[in-house]
Amino acid sequence: MITGKNYIGNALKGSGSKTFKTFNPQLNKETSWQFIEATEEELKEAVTLAWDAFKEFQKTTGTQKATFLRAIADEIEALDNELIETYCAESGLPEGRAKGERGRTCFQLRMFADLVEDGSWVDASIDIANKDRQPNPKPDLRKMLIPIGPIAVFGASNFPLAYSTAGGDTASALAAGCPVVVKSHPMHAGTGELVASAILKAAKNTKMPNGVFSNLNSSGIEVGKLLVNHPLIKGVGFTGSIGGGRALFNMAAEREEPIPVFAEMGSINPVIVLPKALKQKGKEWAKKYASSITLGTGQFCTNPGLILGIAGEELEDFISTLGEEIEKVEPMCMLNPGILSRYEENKKKMLAENDVSIVTDYSSNVPQNYAKQAVITADGESFLKNPQLHQEVFGPFSLVVKFQNKEQLTEAIANLEGQLTGTFISEDNEVEDYGDVVHALQNRVGRVIFNGVPTGVEVCTAMQHGGPYPASTDSRFGAVGVQGIQRWVRPLSFQDWPNHLLPDALKNDNPLQILRTVNGDKTKDAI
Amino acid sequence: MITGKNYIGNALKGSGSKTFKTFNPQLNKETSWQFIEATEEELKEAVTLAWDAFKEFQKTTGTQKATFLRAIADEIEALDNELIETYCAESGLPEGRAKGERGRTCFQLRMFADLVEDGSWVDASIDIANKDRQPNPKPDLRKMLIPIGPIAVFGASNFPLAYSTAGGDTASALAAGCPVVVKSHPMHAGTGELVASAILKAAKNTKMPNGVFSNLNSSGIEVGKLLVNHPLIKGVGFTGSIGGGRALFNMAAEREEPIPVFAEMGSINPVIVLPKALKQKGKEWAKKYASSITLGTGQFCTNPGLILGIAGEELEDFISTLGEEIEKVEPMCMLNPGILSRYEENKKKMLAENDVSIVTDYSSNVPQNYAKQAVITADGESFLKNPQLHQEVFGPFSLVVKFQNKEQLTEAIANLEGQLTGTFISEDNEVEDYGDVVHALQNRVGRVIFNGVPTGVEVCTAMQHGGPYPASTDSRFGAVGVQGIQRWVRPLSFQDWPNHLLPDALKNDNPLQILRTVNGDKTKDAI
Repeated sequence: MITGKNYIGNALKGSGSKTFKTFNPQLNKETSWQFIEATEEELKEAVTLAWDAFKEFQKTTGTQKATFLRAIADEIEALDNELIETYCAESGLPEGRAKGERGRTCFQLRMFADLVEDGSWVDASIDIANKDRQPNPKPDLRKMLIPIGPIAVFGASNFPLAYSTAGGDTASALAAGCPVVVKSHPMHAGTGELVASAILKAAKNTKMPNGVFSNLNSSGIEVGKLLVNHPLIKGVGFTGSIGGGRALFNMAAEREEPIPVFAEMGSINPVIVLPKALKQKGKEWAKKYASSITLGTGQFCTNPGLILGIAGEELEDFISTLGEEIEKVEPMCMLNPGILSRYEENKKKMLAENDVSIVTDYSSNVPQNYAKQAVITADGESFLKNPQLHQEVFGPFSLVVKFQNKEQLTEAIANLEGQLTGTFISEDNEVEDYGDVVHALQNRVGRVIFNGVPTGVEVCTAMQHGGPYPASTDSRFGAVGVQGIQRWVRPLSFQDWPNHLLPDALKNDNPLQILRTVNGDKTKDAI
Repeated sequence: MITGKNYIGNALKGSGSKTFKTFNPQLNKETSWQFIEATEEELKEAVTLAWDAFKEFQKTTGTQKATFLRAIADEIEALDNELIETYCAESGLPEGRAKGERGRTCFQLRMFADLVEDGSWVDASIDIANKDRQPNPKPDLRKMLIPIGPIAVFGASNFPLAYSTAGGDTASALAAGCPVVVKSHPMHAGTGELVASAILKAAKNTKMPNGVFSNLNSSGIEVGKLLVNHPLIKGVGFTGSIGGGRALFNMAAEREEPIPVFAEMGSINPVIVLPKALKQKGKEWAKKYASSITLGTGQFCTNPGLILGIAGEELEDFISTLGEEIEKVEPMCMLNPGILSRYEENKKKMLAENDVSIVTDYSSNVPQNYAKQAVITADGESFLKNPQLHQEVFGPFSLVVKFQNKEQLTEAIANLEGQLTGTFISEDNEVEDYGDVVHALQNRVGRVIFNGVPTGVEVCTAMQHGGPYPASTDSRFGAVGVQGIQRWVRPLSFQDWPNHLLPDALKNDNPLQILRTVNGDKTKDAI
């Protein structure tokens, strides 16, 4: 049941006077729930509880954490239709998407459960003492990863489940042993509260300390500011706009004790279409890209917002088919009127830029809050001269740029802002003639794709979701897959520490049976 | 031969008009060389060369990089007496220390050579495609670590070799595939130039691109500022004061594209002496600590500047023996008159604090530039109330604090600033009664030591040299050991990329024979 209150640890509280509502974009009206913003006092209580819980939670075994994470997934599934209906009402997204995202969310929670149950992720390494070494004896050194402390997680507008309350950031932080305080996304505060209730039910049933999780409502920026500036918060996870992510990054860097911020922000995900590929399969690719550009009403961070080709007949044919195919796509609802109006505004600005031509600007009438897709083109020289053309238009929009030659294309890629992904559409070994372009692209992105679309982010070990700034604030870490846990931990070394007082992961007999690095070799053997 | 000029890539340049000299603290006079500060133009040329070199250098194989790193070690050794004499002249440190540090420097270079020759450090992971998966086929994903770009390295005053020109930061960055621009430390610019000449000789002999390394002279902060703000610099390594490190961190965070700064800064390295241990072996520990406090004239970042005990007879006896032993230590020369005067000033401030008592304040005459060691005490309550007593006094100085009980000690530890190390001196299982203290300490440090001294930082995999702020700006990374390479790399994923176009580390047949994670399992097998 949605109460509109905040979860301060296990307790529902709502002593504040500021309230807000969420919005159903399909019905074009507010939902029935009223949410009470967390007060500064409630926020401080949540963080203090998280800090106290940290003392106990960081000692929790991998098996206990796994039980907790699996219980969260079970409780989310147990919310059943109430969750799916709330999700759809607050996002305008269809039921299939809601169920798919719920599946992804629970999959992620169980994936982290498996990871911490196995336990090898702590990257234990042991260098045995050598008392006879000259000129000085060598001490015994053992190192493992430990959690850094309470983490603030900011829900994402475009993934009410998989990148919000119990999404990848929360799942990875809890798996690491860090309590989490969520700043719920105001567009789906009801979905957030339901998921928070599932987390806290799971926490109680698996005997986790009170404060291991809290959920704060807020429609403005004040709660987020206070959270990031609270001295007991030790890290921040965020998915959203460049403006929002950078503001949090700046605040965190200016603290007396700076803390890491993992903000996954904007990306236009360049796609390079090579001439032979367009000649052979241009129509097929145009169809696939019309679908990728409009998938989820273009509200994916991996949306292909920029297509780069070599000017010529093949590219012209591709553009015209892409235009036709895009025109055929049935417009869909955006998450929120606010997101729609920003989309319309950014699209309008882009269409008004010098030297761009419109390929498709969907003009039929659409229901309220539905987005009209658009594709435009520009030439390479204009693109190089005008950085406005690099800006993300969050929604079903793409810009196709026609370059004079390979060199101009390479220059454009090398000067692009950092991106989550970069894609090559190439026939056979055509890409081999574009070594410089490939090389330039690899330096600007976190993931390169061959003959595919950037939308669709597989959750697996070899996935990298993150990229050079401004795709993310720290390209050395990723937000998808088990490696996400690395963001919330740091190494601690034990020198000459008595065996029975060491954490289990570092004890001689390897009681956890984890893979460790002993004197440089990977092994599960005892010492 | 020392020319006093800057290495802009392979070329010696000195078009600037600002000059400075280094100082021999043992002779209390300037050395004979005159150093020319790098101009802004020379700096820009060095960074641009580094950026151009990066394109080629990042493609260099592990074997080629290993050859380069080993050649640097060989060339440093070939500098022979000229290097040792210059080192001693510019630092006032004895020949034994110079040779020891040269050994450590060359060991580190060869350690990184072994690491990149083996190649497994790129952490290759592969998730094979599954075209039949429902509802969507699973793509092929392969991920590895790649270098981030040119790195600025700031030489450290207290390690003219091991943490300067060819020290841990430079060695790890070159191993990663990142070109390096060094801002040479002005106190040992001659040592720096000699080492730079060795690096560039090695680079030429092993056919590395021009610009893979540059060395800039500067006596002020201007060159460092320009370096950190240059858009083509992608990361910063620094060892030094909290003020200096934080200033660089702030600049890097305020850039249009923020970049990571790894600053290893201040630490007072708390040592907890437990009563039984003092009762049994108090004299022995006092002797060891008198030696650790004054080692290298107290100019180590792991110097034990804070000793914490429970008030009582055992602690009083320990303090009085420590005082006697410290008094017996022969004072030694500091690195530089500037460092000495800051030491004297900070010590004086500390002695003037309320509620402190002097145990030893060495008063006999000493030669010019020699430091007089001191030990003082305070009670737990004063320590808790007065954060001035937490300040680092860089030099042969330590504060012993007497706490009323375990709880007061725990509170003090929990409220300490982040530290590189924390040590327990304990008899048998005495430490087991101090669970809360141990736990609090582990949350404040990067390395915990049992019955030892914090000085002496072993170079090995299980070492962590770094800690919560302000010990370092990023506790998730360390400056000592092979893991140092992680600071200069980021993951890149390849999705459905043709096998023959993949980097060797990710190819099906595993031509490099490295350890990889394939579908979740560690293996060297081909696919």
